[in-house]
Amino acid sequence: MNEIKETPIVILNFKTYLESTGENALKLAKSSEMVAEETGVNIMVAPQYTDIYRIAREVDIPVLAQHIDTIDAGGHTGSILPECVKEAGAVGTLINHSERRVELFEIDAAIKKADSLGLSTVVCTNNIETSSAAATLNPDFVAIEPPELIGSGIPVSKAEPEIVEKTVESIHNINPKVRVLCGAGISTGDDLKAAIDLGSEGVLLASGIILADDPKKALLDLVSKI
Amino acid sequence: MNEIKETPIVILNFKTYLESTGENALKLAKSSEMVAEETGVNIMVAPQYTDIYRIAREVDIPVLAQHIDTIDAGGHTGSILPECVKEAGAVGTLINHSERRVELFEIDAAIKKADSLGLSTVVCTNNIETSSAAATLNPDFVAIEPPELIGSGIPVSKAEPEIVEKTVESIHNINPKVRVLCGAGISTGDDLKAAIDLGSEGVLLASGIILADDPKKALLDLVSKI
Amino acid sequence: MNEIKETPIVILNFKTYLESTGENALKLAKSSEMVAEETGVNIMVAPQYTDIYRIAREVDIPVLAQHIDTIDAGGHTGSILPECVKEAGAVGTLINHSERRVELFEIDAAIKKADSLGLSTVVCTNNIETSSAAATLNPDFVAIEPPELIGSGIPVSKAEPEIVEKTVESIHNINPKVRVLCGAGISTGDDLKAAIDLGSEGVLLASGIILADDPKKALLDLVSKI
Amino acid sequence: MNEIKETPIVILNFKTYLESTGENALKLAKSSEMVAEETGVNIMVAPQYTDIYRIAREVDIPVLAQHIDTIDAGGHTGSILPECVKEAGAVGTLINHSERRVELFEIDAAIKKADSLGLSTVVCTNNIETSSAAATLNPDFVAIEPPELIGSGIPVSKAEPEIVEKTVESIHNINPKVRVLCGAGISTGDDLKAAIDLGSEGVLLASGIILADDPKKALLDLVSKI
Repeated sequence: MNEIKETPIVILNFKTYLESTGENALKLAKSSEMVAEETGVNIMVAPQYTDIYRIAREVDIPVLAQHIDTIDAGGHTGSILPECVKEAGAVGTLINHSERRVELFEIDAAIKKADSLGLSTVVCTNNIETSSAAATLNPDFVAIEPPELIGSGIPVSKAEPEIVEKTVESIHNINPKVRVLCGAGISTGDDLKAAIDLGSEGVLLASGIILADDPKKALLDLVSKI
Repeated sequence: MNEIKETPIVILNFKTYLESTGENALKLAKSSEMVAEETGVNIMVAPQYTDIYRIAREVDIPVLAQHIDTIDAGGHTGSILPECVKEAGAVGTLINHSERRVELFEIDAAIKKADSLGLSTVVCTNNIETSSAAATLNPDFVAIEPPELIGSGIPVSKAEPEIVEKTVESIHNINPKVRVLCGAGISTGDDLKAAIDLGSEGVLLASGIILADDPKKALLDLVSKI
Repeated sequence: MNEIKETPIVILNFKTYLESTGENALKLAKSSEMVAEETGVNIMVAPQYTDIYRIAREVDIPVLAQHIDTIDAGGHTGSILPECVKEAGAVGTLINHSERRVELFEIDAAIKKADSLGLSTVVCTNNIETSSAAATLNPDFVAIEPPELIGSGIPVSKAEPEIVEKTVESIHNINPKVRVLCGAGISTGDDLKAAIDLGSEGVLLASGIILADDPKKALLDLVSKI
Repeated sequence: MNEIKETPIVILNFKTYLESTGENALKLAKSSEMVAEETGVNIMVAPQYTDIYRIAREVDIPVLAQHIDTIDAGGHTGSILPECVKEAGAVGTLINHSERRVELFEIDAAIKKADSLGLSTVVCTNNIETSSAAATLNPDFVAIEPPELIGSGIPVSKAEPEIVEKTVESIHNINPKVRVLCGAGISTGDDLKAAIDLGSEGVLLASGIILADDPKKALLDLVSKI
C-alpha cells in the first residue's frame, strides 16, 4: 500500500447511517476531501459498498470497503467479491470491524486476497491480545477499538491511554511493519492529538463526525491540534 | 410493485462471477436491456451491490439487489442497508437465495422492510414446503430452486416438473397473490417454455447465461420459444 | 409424537442459567416431575445438551433438546447431532428459539430429520406471520414468543392476547394438526390460564420459574388455575 | 492445566460420527483409556457435548469439549455454556476447530473464560500464520491442521512436514509456553512418530481411529513407534 504514507491517518467509517448513505455519502466524502486538501491530513473514507463507485469517481482521497468476503469469483450470491470492490474504486478495506467480525482464518485469507489485489488492509481489533494476533497476519494497519467505547463519545485515547500504548508496543514487538490506529469515542482535535501522542498513527472514527451538525467543521476540528 | 406486471419474467442473477463484475456487469445489463426491448420479455438484473448504482443509471430495466440486511440505519459496518440499495437505484431484492440463506424471522422482516420502501421482493426457496412457508409471508415472488440443480445445466423444469407444478399449486392455495418463478439449471428457450407451461411466471437464472460464450445470444435463445 | 397428548403442556426451557445447569438442572427436573405427578399437567423440560443424559435417566417426564443441527453423522465437530441427543434420552427438540434462530430451510430440514428419528418438534416463532410459515412445515408444535416480552415478566397472554388468538387461528387455517403454545413473560397461574383461554394448548417458559426463589412452588402456582 | 504434562499427547476428536455417539462413544473412550494405561501415552477424548457426562464418569482419562460458546450464564438457549461442560466433567476444550471456526475475538474470549474455569485450551488452526496468531492469545495448545488433509488419510506429518516444523518454530518464537500439536490425515504409528520428530508434542485425530475396523487396535498401532 504505497499510496498511504503520510500521517496522521484519519479513516472515516460511514457505517450504515442515513447521514452517510447515497447523496449524503457523496457530500460527506467531498467534505472529507476538502479538509484533506486544506490541512494535508491523510483522510480516507469507508462508505457502504453501494456508494463506493460514485464516491471513488468524484473524490480524490482513498476509498475503503467496510468488509470483503474471502471468496473467489463464482456462485456466491449476496457476497462481497474483493475484485468487485476494487474495480469500483476501493484501494483498501476494513477487515473484522467489531460490527462485522470474521473468523480468524478469514482475517488471514482476506489479508492475502487483498494483498494479491493491491488493496490495503485495516484489521480492526478489540483489545491488546487480538491486536497482537492480528499483527502476526501482516496487515497494513491494525485499528484497535475497545467495543465498549464505540459510539460512546468517550475517547479511547483519554479513557484507556494505556491500552493504546501497550497495543502499539505489543504490535511492534511482533511485526514492526504494521501501523497502528486507534478508535472508539474519537471526535475532537484533542482526541486525535492524544492518539498520536500515544504512538498510534491515526484514528478510525464514525459517529463523532457523521452525526455532527456540521461534519466538515467537525473534521476540521478533529485535525486542528496536529 | 406495480412496475413488474408483464410476463414472462426473467431475473438474471449476476452472482459474483468476474464475467458479471464491474464493466462486465454493465455490459451484461445492457445486453439484457437490448433483449428486453427487442422481445418485450420482462428481464431484470441482480448485480453485486457495488454495481447497482452505475447499472441503474445506464439501463432502463429493473435492477434488484442480491440480498438486503434487516437492519435499521445506524452502526452496522459492512451490512447492506435497504435504504442504500434503494437510493442506488434498486427496485427490489432477492431474499434468502440458497447461497445467502437467512433465518425465518429475517425473511419476514426483510419483506416488511422492503414493502415499506417500495422494493419488490423475490424470496428464494429450496422445495415445496419452504415455498409454502415463504408464501405465508406475502412476498411479491417466490422463486423455487432445488439446490442440487443450481449450476448443473439440468433444468428444473425438465428434471423435476412436478416440483414446479406442485409449488405453484401449494403457493396459490396459501396466497394467490404470490407469483411463482422457478430456477436451477435453466438456460434454453425450451427450459423457459417448460417453466411457463408448468404454471410459473418466469425464471431466475445465472450461469447458463453469464458464462455463455455470447450472453446476449443466450438470452435471445432463452426467450425465443414464448 | 404420540406420547405428548395431554394438555395443558408446560415446556420449561432451562436455557443456560447456572440455576439450571448440572446438579441444579437435575434438581429442577425432579421438581418438574413431582409437580407433573401431583397435578397431572404435562410438564416437559429442555435442559442443556450436556445435561440431557443424566436427566433423562433420572426423571420420567419428557426431555427435549434446546436445538439440533441439521447434519448427518460425520465430520461436524462441535455440532449437535440429532441422533446423539436422541440416544441420550431426548424425545423431542426446540427448533428456532429466538436465542438460537436458524434459516428457513433448516427449520424444514430439522423437522424432517426429527420426524425420521421419532423426535417431537417445537418450532419457536416471533409473530403471527412466522408462526403461519412454520405451520406449513408440519411440526408437532409452534410456540409463539414475541421477543420483546421474553424475560420481561410481562405475560404475552395478557399483554398481547390478540396475538395468541390470531396465531392459533392462522395456524389452524393452514394446518389443523399443529398444536399451538405461547411464551414470553409467563410465570403465574393466571398467565397460563389466560394462555389456555386464548386457544393455546400450553406455554413455553424459562426465567419466571428457573429464577424463582422456590421453582417448585412457582411451578405449582403456574398450574394452579387450570 | 497441570494434569496434562506427559507427552506425546493424542487427542481423539469424536466429531459427530455414529461410531462415536452414545454407547459407541463410551466404548471408544474405554478403549482409549485401556491403551493409555497399557502404553503410558497421554490420550484424551473429545466426545459430543451430550456424551461428556457419562464418559467423564466412566473413564479416567481427560475429556475435552469440542467447542464452548463465549457466553455468560443466562438466556442463551441452545448455546454451550463453559460452566456446564465443566460440571459435566470436561477438563478442557477444543476451540476453533476447522469444522467449528469462531471469530478472532471469540478465540481470545474463550481462552480467557476457560482459564478462569481451569479448563485447558486447544486452539485449532489451519496454517502457520493463524497458528502464530493463536499463540499470541496464550492457549495451552495450538493444533495445526491443514484443512485440505483432514479426513484425507494423507498425514500432515509426511505430506507437509515443513508446515509442522515452521509452525513449531513460529509459535515458540512468539510464545514458548504454547505446546504444539498437529493433525489431519494422521492414523498410523509412523505418522505420530513423524509428528513428534518434527517438534510437535502430539496429534489431534479422528476418522483414522474412529472409522477403523478395530479402533483399539488402531490406537495401539498409532502409539507403537514412540
